[in-house]
Amino acid sequence: MVNDQGLSYFEDYALGTTYDCGSVSVDQASIIAFAKEFDPQPFHVDPEAAAAGPFGGLIASGWHTAALVMRLLVENYLSEESSLGSAGLDELRWPYPVRPGDTLRARATVVEARRSLSKPDRGIIKTLVEAVNQDGRTVMRATAINFMLVRPAPRPVSPAPRP
Amino acid sequence: MVNDQGLSYFEDYALGTTYDCGSVSVDQASIIAFAKEFDPQPFHVDPEAAAAGPFGGLIASGWHTAALVMRLLVENYLSEESSLGSAGLDELRWPYPVRPGDTLRARATVVEARRSLSKPDRGIIKTLVEAVNQDGRTVMRATAINFMLVRPAPRPVSPAPRP
Repeated sequence: MVNDQGLSYFEDYALGTTYDCGSVSVDQASIIAFAKEFDPQPFHVDPEAAAAGPFGGLIASGWHTAALVMRLLVENYLSEESSLGSAGLDELRWPYPVRPGDTLRARATVVEARRSLSKPDRGIIKTLVEAVNQDGRTVMRATAINFMLVRPAPRPVSPAPRP
Repeated sequence: MVNDQGLSYFEDYALGTTYDCGSVSVDQASIIAFAKEFDPQPFHVDPEAAAAGPFGGLIASGWHTAALVMRLLVENYLSEESSLGSAGLDELRWPYPVRPGDTLRARATVVEARRSLSKPDRGIIKTLVEAVNQDGRTVMRATAINFMLVRPAPRPVSPAPRP
């Protein structure tokens, strides 16, 4: 299966290319629900306390933002056929808060692509992931490290039997 | 309010000190539920496909692991009184998969602590966060950047009126 971007195997991720990964909106109920489970700081779970707090209102947990962006990457960037998971990220930043009602658009830029030296069936891709809100503010920026299968070699065609 | 570690303000985070942040267990149902919402790759959501996949079984989304560890940090490390949120992480790694039934223990080591030059009410703390499974394998490692309020100066005592 090829995703909408035509990304199926390692070779398809073109160095320097930026892929639009679509957008997602986030409401107050989902911000609070995520944070109650994973990041119950007052400015993520309690609108009243948040209004008097450092951000002057409720903001999403950075982990919630990251998870929402991940969903966009899975749907629009990472190939189901060849993704072998991630080793992690070289950097993750939340430069601007995400607030209820925001719509975040994600884009992914291939900043490094190399074949694995130890495992010839795969390559390593580094991706600059950026999420921007409806006002053009960058709310998340990260460099992710992913492993992708290389395109399988075509099966050798059996030579025709000699007459 | 001081948390169990006695961490209330910036000054309490002692450079070089490691704080035990407790543990959390993760089951298959919660791995699948998180991944269906945020990271629906086959090896996170489909036990059968996962068994035939790159990890030989279902594994947790790295974002799920990070969120579970965040919960432990909020409960046992980040001061509700002084936490001003995070700018992000300098590095995030998932060196070993998290599988259903795993119990993860988190610890936090203060690797940098300095007062803000631009905002005198706060300091910046860098924390090496590590999560280790029941077999002693490190499943997550990150360096987080947090802002913390400094301890408020005591109110000046009014001088006694001169006789």
